[in-house]
This record gives sequence, C-alpha cells and structure tokens, in this order.
Amino acid sequence: MKKTLSLLLLLALIIIPARAADVQDVKPTKNVILFISDGTSLATVSTARWLQWYSHPDKPNLNIDPYICGTVRTHSSDAPIGDSAPTTSCYVSGQPSQTGFVSTYPVHRGNDDIYPTDPNRAYQPTMTILEAVKMFKGGSTGLVFTCEFPHATPADCSAHSYNRGKYEWIASQMVHNNLDVVIGGGVSILTNNLEEHLKENGYSVYKNDLKGMRADTNSKMWALYADREMDYDLDRNPDEQPSIEEMTKKAIEKLSKNDKGFFLMVEGSKVDWAAHANDPVGMATDFLAFDRAVGAALEFAKQNGETTVIITSDHGNSGVSIGRESCKGYDKLTKDQLFKNLSQFKLTAEGFAKKVNTIPNSEVQSLFREQAGFELTKEELDALNNCKDYKFSPIPEAERHEKSQASMYSNSLSGLMSQIITSRTCMGFTTHGHTGEEVFLASYHPQGTRPMGMHTNIELNHYMCSLYGFEPTFLSDMSNKYFARHTDVFSDYTCEIIPAKEGELAPTLVVKNKKDKKKQLTIHAYTNIVKAGKKADQDIILNSVVVYVDKNNTFYLPESLVDFLK
Amino acid sequence: MKKTLSLLLLLALIIIPARAADVQDVKPTKNVILFISDGTSLATVSTARWLQWYSHPDKPNLNIDPYICGTVRTHSSDAPIGDSAPTTSCYVSGQPSQTGFVSTYPVHRGNDDIYPTDPNRAYQPTMTILEAVKMFKGGSTGLVFTCEFPHATPADCSAHSYNRGKYEWIASQMVHNNLDVVIGGGVSILTNNLEEHLKENGYSVYKNDLKGMRADTNSKMWALYADREMDYDLDRNPDEQPSIEEMTKKAIEKLSKNDKGFFLMVEGSKVDWAAHANDPVGMATDFLAFDRAVGAALEFAKQNGETTVIITSDHGNSGVSIGRESCKGYDKLTKDQLFKNLSQFKLTAEGFAKKVNTIPNSEVQSLFREQAGFELTKEELDALNNCKDYKFSPIPEAERHEKSQASMYSNSLSGLMSQIITSRTCMGFTTHGHTGEEVFLASYHPQGTRPMGMHTNIELNHYMCSLYGFEPTFLSDMSNKYFARHTDVFSDYTCEIIPAKEGELAPTLVVKNKKDKKKQLTIHAYTNIVKAGKKADQDIILNSVVVYVDKNNTFYLPESLVDFLK
Repeated sequence: MKKTLSLLLLLALIIIPARAADVQDVKPTKNVILFISDGTSLATVSTARWLQWYSHPDKPNLNIDPYICGTVRTHSSDAPIGDSAPTTSCYVSGQPSQTGFVSTYPVHRGNDDIYPTDPNRAYQPTMTILEAVKMFKGGSTGLVFTCEFPHATPADCSAHSYNRGKYEWIASQMVHNNLDVVIGGGVSILTNNLEEHLKENGYSVYKNDLKGMRADTNSKMWALYADREMDYDLDRNPDEQPSIEEMTKKAIEKLSKNDKGFFLMVEGSKVDWAAHANDPVGMATDFLAFDRAVGAALEFAKQNGETTVIITSDHGNSGVSIGRESCKGYDKLTKDQLFKNLSQFKLTAEGFAKKVNTIPNSEVQSLFREQAGFELTKEELDALNNCKDYKFSPIPEAERHEKSQASMYSNSLSGLMSQIITSRTCMGFTTHGHTGEEVFLASYHPQGTRPMGMHTNIELNHYMCSLYGFEPTFLSDMSNKYFARHTDVFSDYTCEIIPAKEGELAPTLVVKNKKDKKKQLTIHAYTNIVKAGKKADQDIILNSVVVYVDKNNTFYLPESLVDFLK
Repeated sequence: MKKTLSLLLLLALIIIPARAADVQDVKPTKNVILFISDGTSLATVSTARWLQWYSHPDKPNLNIDPYICGTVRTHSSDAPIGDSAPTTSCYVSGQPSQTGFVSTYPVHRGNDDIYPTDPNRAYQPTMTILEAVKMFKGGSTGLVFTCEFPHATPADCSAHSYNRGKYEWIASQMVHNNLDVVIGGGVSILTNNLEEHLKENGYSVYKNDLKGMRADTNSKMWALYADREMDYDLDRNPDEQPSIEEMTKKAIEKLSKNDKGFFLMVEGSKVDWAAHANDPVGMATDFLAFDRAVGAALEFAKQNGETTVIITSDHGNSGVSIGRESCKGYDKLTKDQLFKNLSQFKLTAEGFAKKVNTIPNSEVQSLFREQAGFELTKEELDALNNCKDYKFSPIPEAERHEKSQASMYSNSLSGLMSQIITSRTCMGFTTHGHTGEEVFLASYHPQGTRPMGMHTNIELNHYMCSLYGFEPTFLSDMSNKYFARHTDVFSDYTCEIIPAKEGELAPTLVVKNKKDKKKQLTIHAYTNIVKAGKKADQDIILNSVVVYVDKNNTFYLPESLVDFLK
C-alpha cells in the first residue's frame, strides 16, 4: 500500500507538465468560446484563404488571421498522431487519452505513453471544463457543431466513454448533463425518452425547425438538424439548415444572459470529414463557414469585453498540400490556374454524390457543367456508371467493374467525386487519415493575455482553466471527487449490480445501508438522476452524470452520494 | 506623359498593402536577426521536434517554440506558390517578385499579378533592408548560410539579378556590397579576383579554414567552406565545417561591435534541399541544427536588450506529413513505432549516397547496419547496384536497369537513399517541389512589439523596416534613388555602352560631358567601383552596387552619380 502511494506521488510529479509560462499571468474572463475546426492542417487554412480571396478580391484575410498566435502539438496519450476523441478530451479535461476515448482516463501503456499515466485511473471519467464551469461557477454551457451530437468532439465536452461509438451511452449523458444550449446535427439519435426528459426539464426542443429555433427565447434549448450530421455548408439548403455562424450567434445570444459567465464550444465538424474524403472543396468551404462563425464570436467578444475566444484544431488530416507532383509545373501556376477551378464547384464531393443519385443519368453532364464548370470525361463517366452505389447507372449492378487501384473505379460514389474534384486542382494528399503535425492556434483575450507560441494540448487546457481561475490540477482533483469509483465511495455499504434488462443501457447499482433499510440508493448510469429510498421513489438530481464502465464493472459517481446513506 | 503619371499614382495607391496593424506601434531596436529556414512546411518543424524529443527525453521543445506568433503567406508576384529567390526578396525588399528573380522588380503580368505591379519598373533592382541598414544607419551587415554564397536566399539580401542562376553576376555584387561578415558555402565560386578585392579592402578571408575563422578578430570577414554547399549537419565533419550555430555566434560576435547596430540574415539553406529530395532525416536534422542557431541568437538578444529576432521560412516544400496512406495503421502507432527508425539514421540520404560511393560493394550492408540500424533488402541492394551513379556496382553500367516508376530503380543514388529512408518511416510526401501553404512565424522583441497573426511577406518586410525606423515605402523610394536607370540619370549626357570583352561579366557604360571632356564616368556593372576622368584613373567608391540588365540594356545606378559630370 505504501509502495503504491509513493508510486502515485512520483507519477503526480511527472505527469503534470510545467505550466505554460503565460498561464500564471492570465487575466480571468467571464466567458470562454472554444472553436475547434476538426482535422484541419495548416494547408487547409491556407487553401480556404486563397479560395476566399480568389472569389472575393476584397477579402484577402480570414477572421482568424490577426489572432493566430502559435501552434498546438496535439496527440493521443499513447500515439503521436491524435484521434478526435482523445485530443479534444485533452483540450477540455487536461488529460490526453487513447483512440476512441471520450473524456475518459486512458489505460496505462507503460513506455508507450507519451506522458506517464496512472494505471489506477484507467477508464475514470475526466471532468471537463464545461462541466466545471457549470458545477463550480454557475455558468451556462453550450455546444455548437455540424456532426451528429454524440460525435467525438461535442461528446468530449459533455460525456464520458471509452468507446466513442457508443452513441446511446453518450447521448444519454449529454441530455442529462444540464447543458444550456445544444445546436447541431442528429435528430434521429435523440430518442423519445431523451426528448421527453429535455422538455420536462424546461428545454425548448427543435427538430429540423429553423423558424422555431430562430424565434426561441427560452434560456435552455436543443435544436437539431438532419437525421445524423448536417450538410456541408456549400451543400446546405439555407431554408432548412442554419449556418454554423447563425448557430454560434444564437448560442451566444442565449448563453450571454447568464451573469456568471459561460463556456461555449463550437466545432467545425466536417472539415475533418472532407479531409478524410480528400475533398478539397469540402475542406476549404467548410473551414470558411467555420471562420465566419469565428468572426461572429470575435465581434461579440470585442463588444462584450469579458470573453476569451480560442480557435484551434484537434489534429491534422489528409497530408493536404497546395501543389502535387503529378500536376506538372504547378509551382509556377498563376492564381487563376491554381484556384479558378476550385472556386467553381458549387457542391462538395458529397454534394455531387447525393445529387447524382437524384437525377437521371442523362442529366449528369449538365449537372457538372452547371455546378462544376466542366463536363466529365469518357473515363469519368464510365467510372461513375460503374460505382456500386450509383443508383441511375445504365450498367446493371452485377456487371459493374470492381475497385481497381490503377483506375478511377472506386466503388464509392463520393470517393469518385473527390477524385474528380481533385483532378481539376493541383491539391495533393498523402493519406485519407489523420496526420501528426502541430495545428494552428489563434486567440482573442480582452486584456491580451493570450497563449503565445507552441503549446501542448495539455497546456492549452491549463490556459483555459486559468481563464476561469481554476488551478491546473483542478479538473483532475474534481474528477476524483465527482467520478469516484462506487467501490471506494460505498466501501462501507452493500453494493449490488443488477444486470441490464432489455432496453436498458447499463446495469443498475443498488446500494444499501444494512443498519437502516430506508437508506438505499438506486443508480442508473449515464444520467444525473439517482433514486433514493427503499422504493426508489425520491429523486436526487446531480449536477454531473453517473458513468458506468463495463470493462471494470464500475460506476463512477460523486463521492458525496455516500451522505445519503448515513 | 500625364497619362503614365496618373497610372503610376493609381498603382501606388493600389500596390502598397495596408500596414499591418502592429507596424505603427513597433519599438525600434538597434539590431535585427532574420532567420529563414528555407522550404520548411509546418510538418517539418513538428517532425524535428518529435525527433529531438524522442532522442532527448529532456528536450520536448524547440528553441522557436515559445516565440511562434503567427504565420506568413508567402508567394511570388505572379504565382501563389513561392520560389526562394522572390520570396526572400520580398522579405528583405518588400516587393514580391517572379520565379528566379533576386531582389529585382518583376515583369508586369497584368491580371496574373497577385498584387498589381508597375510595368515601368520591370528588372529594377529593389533595395534590401540589409543594404539600407548599411547605407542609411551605418550598421554592420552579415550573412550566414549553408548553401553556396550566391544561392537564392543570401543573394536576395545583397545582390540583384533577374536570373538566380547567374552566379558570376551575383557573386561579384556580394563581394562588392560591403558586407561585414559572410559565413557559408562556396569556396570554388570565390574567384581569385574577388578574393583579392576582399583582401585589399580589409577582409579576413578563410577557405575551409575552421581554425582560422575561430581565431579571427577582424571586424570584416568572409569564411567559406566546401566547394559549393556545405554538408548537411548530420553528415558534417565537425573538424572541417562549423555548425550553423557556431557560424551564427561568430557573426553576432563581430557584428555586435558596431554601436550603430546590425542586420544579420541566417539561412538554414538545406532544409529545403532535403525536402526536395523527400529525405525526412535531412529535413528534420538540418532544421534542428537551424533551431540551435536560433537558440544562440535568442540568448544573445535577451542579454543584449536591443535585438529583434525573427524566424520564419520562405515557402513550404514537399507536402510532407507525419503519416501516409501506405503505412497501414500509422495513426495509432506509438512514438517508438513512429520515430525510433527516424532517430537511428546517422547520415542523411545524401550522406548515405556519398558514403556508398567510397566503400566497396561488400561493405554496404555493414554500413547500413551501423549507420541506419538495418540491412538493405534484396530488392534494395538490387536497386542500388542498378543506380547509374553508383561507382562500385558489380553490374556493368551498360547492363543496369533503367528508371522505372513501379520499382525502386531510380538511376539516382541519393534518390534511392531517400526512398530507402522514407520506407522505414511513416512520413508522407505529395511532391518533390515547393508547396503553397503559409509558413510558421516566430519572433522575439525586447519590448514585445512582435508581428502577431498571419502576415503577408510584404507586411513582414514592413515590420522589419519599422524596427529600423524606416517607413514602409522607404526601400521602394531608395530603390528609385540608388537603382535609377542610366538613361534617366544621364539623360543630358552622352552614353556609350561598350560590349563586354572576353572575360568580362557585362558591357561597360561610358558617360561623357561633351562640354567638359575631363568629366567622364566609366562604369562596370556588378561592382561598387566607378571610374572617373578621361583616363578612368579615379575611383568613386559607392556604398551600393551597379547592376546591368541585358534584357533592357540598362545600368541601374545611384542618381547622384550625375553630379560627377556637372
């Protein structure tokens, strides 16, 4: 026991990286808006800027431009190349984690850990700054994004799971975590039960209801669009889906009414998706939409005088470059030659893929002529007709060509569309996956105490903590207090874990005081509601969520819950 | 005439970009050290940092890290992707220019110009900040680099030519431009005549003489190493060639003795060359050598209190990324899996290529075992033996395989070495050429008035000018004064251009005052020496150089020269 303790003390000394020099002098501000352009390499930013300038000669600069102040070296806990779940987890909780881990302490990997980890904390939920602002500052909290709501980045701020794919665990936590404003994608994921819970708790809930959202004046709101992710900004029907700029403004309008301050995270979710698809049009135009949202936030922050805005990405993606080997002489091309084609696409690769599946084969060429400025070559038409997921091909499905590396046959309509788009540009890519270079960092602070230079993702968390007056270890300490193991919290009581029934997300924990049978707790995971009493007929409403981890059969919950058993 | 004038006025209004917001409040400092890591994409910086940290667990950070403060959008005058000659030209003279142009006004390209250009100024030398510091501040000036001295970046600071390849034009200007300290590569390019000129003018000159340079206490010095470019830092024999850190320290030691201040440009020249070669080892290790030089300069600057240090690159190169498609599962690899191999190379690709050509074929495997940590595969050995420029191949040259895209047969030894190195890593590349994304910007200023955010290369010049108290238009105005057309300057006199004789670099301009035959000037291009008198027996020594441009048969020279004819 003594040995373990000293090991832990040693770890504590090693684990906590030195404070960034700038953290000590940071002037706290009431509000923080964290912008994350997911999966955005610096070349994506540059491409977006050139595209904007090319299309709008009076707009050479992005909104982030005057505020770029450094870079961030992001990574997973055990891999230099980051996954979205652990990298934003680190931004919001200060703890790097593993691929797929949503604000959850990583499993110890020994020498493979980039910073040493504590084996005893594996799978523990790590408190996020959003949760801390809500719990300890009485601040309002909000999330804006264009993916479906339980996707990695919004999930990281407001839920905990070692598996980012477990949307049902994550969605339930997000609904029960007392967020004030949630605007993004994922109508189909909000179950009736969850919607009911929101409405019972005073939320306005809008599903694909732009007018409703616009008119809403309630302080608490969920507004979701599209079954899962929202459309790329370029493909978006403005009568059906709001821009990320509008969503950001609406969120700020609501959150800023709280005198105690707020925390808002805005994610440009699909810059990353377009990068995975190697679609330069989707990457650049969705980044520009994100940058316009940044512009709106900066405008608010400058007027408000008590708001810090931080803009960054969580990792690189696609190894994108302006210029590629196969585009002969590209390094001497004029701006027209490099960017005119890029500027003429009126849809993203995904947009073209969807559109092509709604029009007859005979209209494909006119679609490209009108929306891309060119017609498909014979080879491209042939590749299109051979796509497995192309609905209107004149070639029967069984007779279509298989995927082949040497040709354009991709089997995937959107993959082919990306190829076609890219072939009309000189953009290069090294991969369809994430990359390990540092990402841009921009910031605005009313008194100018900004995070300058290269920061780790841990240090950026410490900077954000300091904006709220939280010490760098605060979130870690509070994780121990509010996400304590049920076996530790209830060590003096009788715990029974009742296996999940059909339709339940997790087992139920029942804790009994054998000496006083009235004192009993019934705990359902992924909610903030604990039932008290022998009949479980009293509600204890937490300001945090209870998380169950099947890997170690453990419930993580506030240690103060034990008081109800005394 | 009136029409031309108003066109020019209009251009003047359009051409000059708005001052960067931060230029107005910049506190001047006596000294500026400009560091340029040539052809360095952000991913190169990240790779270097990971490599250093992996090899030295106590060194997670680069020297530039705390000072990163933004990015620079660099470009040529008529192409978004920059060439080294025009991009550094722009840093030092404020004028973007064309591929191959060394501090020379570009040829007008109409709508293809990124910023409008003045057709009347095509080919005019553009005064550099180095020249201005020397001429108008009485400051000392120096250049440190690892390429041969007339190569683009050092040339940009101290010479003018529309053709970066004309080393004889450029070398002569550099020798005649009154630089105080020049340390870098290119022994074979310093002709006897040029060396003689330096010695006659009080310079210490060292050629491959490390001890000599180290002991030198003269204020004026040229120290050159290697026939042309110096070795990569990793391949360097420390008994023969100094590190870029040592060269930087030596330059600062000499330049800082001038009470009036100094300007020093330090180029990490071969980061770019390694990127062209797609050699990640050369890229990362030469950047680290550059970063150590930055560290030495920062140490000086902090003690000195009157020195600004700016660190940037001139353009991206190679589309490098940490991670590539063909390296399956790369995004989850541990730091060992990603960086151990990279850390084990004891030579760059060029270093291996040179080495392999000095040892018998039978020793190749032991070379790789010892210097790279692995043996070549059968295929790699075969590819090596088939390289056209491999001296010790057992295969007769006539029987060797031709280059083939699908295989490793490359014909080039160093190309094959890059392939072999890269295959042992998960680094990706999109091209062997330059790329168009913005580059990192870092800076130190004793009073903290730094260039924050995204700057254009023009704006960065304006920032540097403001450090010396020069207005943004100063260099352009002085270009007109000191690089005026001979036809304008001597419009009232008789000009005769005598064609170049055998062995001369350029024609000779003879200008006569017909009314007073004693008043005559004989002007040789690419020097700072003008001969006066009928017998051309009096020397007028300029503090700038005269440039001849064959394209328009024009000598560019100080307009005050006309006074000698009056």
